[in-house]
Amino acid sequence: MKKYADMSKEELKAELDSLYEQYKEYQGMNLALDMSRGKPCREQLDISMGLMDALNSSADLSCEDGTDCRNYGLLDGIPEAKVLIGAMMENQPENIIIYGNSSLNVMYDTVARAMTHGIMGHTPWCKLDKVKFLCPVPGYDRHFAITEYFDIEMIPVPMSEDGPDMDMVEKLVSEDAAIKGIWCVPKYSNPQGYSYSDDTVRRFAHLKPAASDFRIFWDNAYGIHHLYDDKQDYLLEILEECKKAGNPDLVYKFASTSKITFPGSGIAALATSLNNLADIKKQLKNQTIGHDKVNQLRHVRFFKDIEGMKAHMRKHADIIRPKFEAVLEILDSEIGELEIGSWTRPNGGYFISFDSLEGCAKDIISMAKKAGVTMTEAAATWPYHNDPHDSNIRIAPTLPPIEDLKLATKLFALCVKITSAEKLLKEM
Amino acid sequence: MKKYADMSKEELKAELDSLYEQYKEYQGMNLALDMSRGKPCREQLDISMGLMDALNSSADLSCEDGTDCRNYGLLDGIPEAKVLIGAMMENQPENIIIYGNSSLNVMYDTVARAMTHGIMGHTPWCKLDKVKFLCPVPGYDRHFAITEYFDIEMIPVPMSEDGPDMDMVEKLVSEDAAIKGIWCVPKYSNPQGYSYSDDTVRRFAHLKPAASDFRIFWDNAYGIHHLYDDKQDYLLEILEECKKAGNPDLVYKFASTSKITFPGSGIAALATSLNNLADIKKQLKNQTIGHDKVNQLRHVRFFKDIEGMKAHMRKHADIIRPKFEAVLEILDSEIGELEIGSWTRPNGGYFISFDSLEGCAKDIISMAKKAGVTMTEAAATWPYHNDPHDSNIRIAPTLPPIEDLKLATKLFALCVKITSAEKLLKEM
Repeated sequence: MKKYADMSKEELKAELDSLYEQYKEYQGMNLALDMSRGKPCREQLDISMGLMDALNSSADLSCEDGTDCRNYGLLDGIPEAKVLIGAMMENQPENIIIYGNSSLNVMYDTVARAMTHGIMGHTPWCKLDKVKFLCPVPGYDRHFAITEYFDIEMIPVPMSEDGPDMDMVEKLVSEDAAIKGIWCVPKYSNPQGYSYSDDTVRRFAHLKPAASDFRIFWDNAYGIHHLYDDKQDYLLEILEECKKAGNPDLVYKFASTSKITFPGSGIAALATSLNNLADIKKQLKNQTIGHDKVNQLRHVRFFKDIEGMKAHMRKHADIIRPKFEAVLEILDSEIGELEIGSWTRPNGGYFISFDSLEGCAKDIISMAKKAGVTMTEAAATWPYHNDPHDSNIRIAPTLPPIEDLKLATKLFALCVKITSAEKLLKEM
Repeated sequence: MKKYADMSKEELKAELDSLYEQYKEYQGMNLALDMSRGKPCREQLDISMGLMDALNSSADLSCEDGTDCRNYGLLDGIPEAKVLIGAMMENQPENIIIYGNSSLNVMYDTVARAMTHGIMGHTPWCKLDKVKFLCPVPGYDRHFAITEYFDIEMIPVPMSEDGPDMDMVEKLVSEDAAIKGIWCVPKYSNPQGYSYSDDTVRRFAHLKPAASDFRIFWDNAYGIHHLYDDKQDYLLEILEECKKAGNPDLVYKFASTSKITFPGSGIAALATSLNNLADIKKQLKNQTIGHDKVNQLRHVRFFKDIEGMKAHMRKHADIIRPKFEAVLEILDSEIGELEIGSWTRPNGGYFISFDSLEGCAKDIISMAKKAGVTMTEAAATWPYHNDPHDSNIRIAPTLPPIEDLKLATKLFALCVKITSAEKLLKEM
């Protein structure tokens, strides 16, 4: 295939005519496909159905320390859940609070608490003229929605395969005391599937922020979410690195079982230093008497230990790996040589990040939508939905059945081709 | 028995000597009994074990509208949970949001949202010089803990059998725009077990607050928690009354299944006007993708409908009614005629409220503690733990086995007698 940029006006026009024909065919199919959100598919949910049998009416619902999980108590979680989730997060049980069903909720509450009460005795953020967060881009739209909701100014920081631009992060954080946080998805990042390099993690741990209430919001959402047995990313453990660097309180680390068992019916957790934990519990005890311990126990009884959880993750990988590969194969074969886009090839996580030619992303998404394929909203991966290049598109391959996914990806590739050809033609 | 106030110094001294003897006996028993919190007992938890069988691995976990409850979605709850909880709360399903496991958490979040973002476009409370709440007293310590945590000034309002002093409520609320809310437990109140009269509810609905972002925080925690079949309190439905009064947005109503199934593993809900719901959802969508729908479905499948839930509540009543009656019998027989205390005789809920002679409550509680019986912390029922009369003690009869409860109550009565006699003697 000839690169679009090398085509003459006539060649491009002919190409476009043929592409429009194909697009019309798709429009006639009445498709209703969704590649927009990182939702597990039915087969993935099915492998966790054993969770529903992990407790029954003849089970003893006491946890290891003798607490009856059916009653009030244990604000920060049952001991065995701390052990299991600790192993999952690579943290000590004593550094962990087990929460409810949503790590997003924990992140939101963490920001909300800092707004109204400040961090460790510092001025509440709502009393400050300006609070800023660094936002590696492209990134996770729901992170940005939280900071936008709290009127926190978001500063984009470019991502590379090794993580955020650490020169920029170090400079900004050390110079501006209004910068109070940074959103990170350090492993199999959303949307690229990148994992931060050892050097990046160490530079994070060694940050010298101007604001002593600066915290790294380390959302390790995909810590054990590998696609391959033999190609797995490895991430340095941040709490340990912060401790070594003499910055033990620098990080809040979040995780959940949302994409391990059932999204919305799993358990979420936070890992951080004992100082931060004490600070958080001062608030938490006013917010709730405790989270759902029965569901914590259910998860522990189902997985037994981290090996059980890892074996479970291999089942997920077996279901979704072919979907990732199908998307990549189609992108490769349809537009691989046209030089009208680039995309990531992750070893885990839930997304592929696609970058179109500048100024094309919105049109591609809208064109796909008109033919029945829903992609993540345009510019969702940028703060304020403002992608200055109008080029990033998040592809979520997990939800659709594979045949639908192939069809949707082909249509997507077609929309990329049409939009790119139109752009190039216009610029001639 | 002779009233203590009628006794001579010598009689009182003799009485005290005999009481001290009895107290010593209790001290020798190494008791470890707890009447401090409204926790269900083991037998109460046992009647909900069927909940653990309501879903199993062969169940279809789709809800009525076809949503797979195992996946993300449905921010405000599954339709059938809204119907069930709507029936429980006596509200329409469309007025309800189903939350996670804790109504306290919903109340906390409601205050937190008002602090950072204001209510329906009004100034966020954190931007105001002063925010105040009315607190009917004695009341629920965890309510007061929330408002204290947010530095909201709490103004005590006396309770009677009909509810808060409405003359005072009307006057304060209409005159002071800094008053933004009032905490209410309108049915089987915590700690008295009083239920607001129709007149009280109507006067609430007709309030004309100076602050248009004033809201009634109506915590109907014990809406169906009757002790008797034939003696049940009835509470007018507040949303309906507010609507009739032309004040549809005046109230946030909270409830949960915490004392119906398992505390901490149930479902919580908020009922309010459509305007308030829209305002709340603008925030909620940033906080979470959704609450635990599988647990919502579990509750619906277990109860089937409100009749199932009511039948279940009769089982609770059968377990705890004898406990309430045992406490009342002992109080009657031990101190009924001594005129050294008064107490309530609720038809439902979780508590009995005891009022000692002025200045005695702390000493009674401390004395009981020294002999191994834990009561609710002194003055917990007052804002800032400041009971100006030092007289109110909350008795929670549900948790201990009945023989323990009897022993604990006898010891409690003994401590009341000793402390009262000491006080009277000192005043002679």
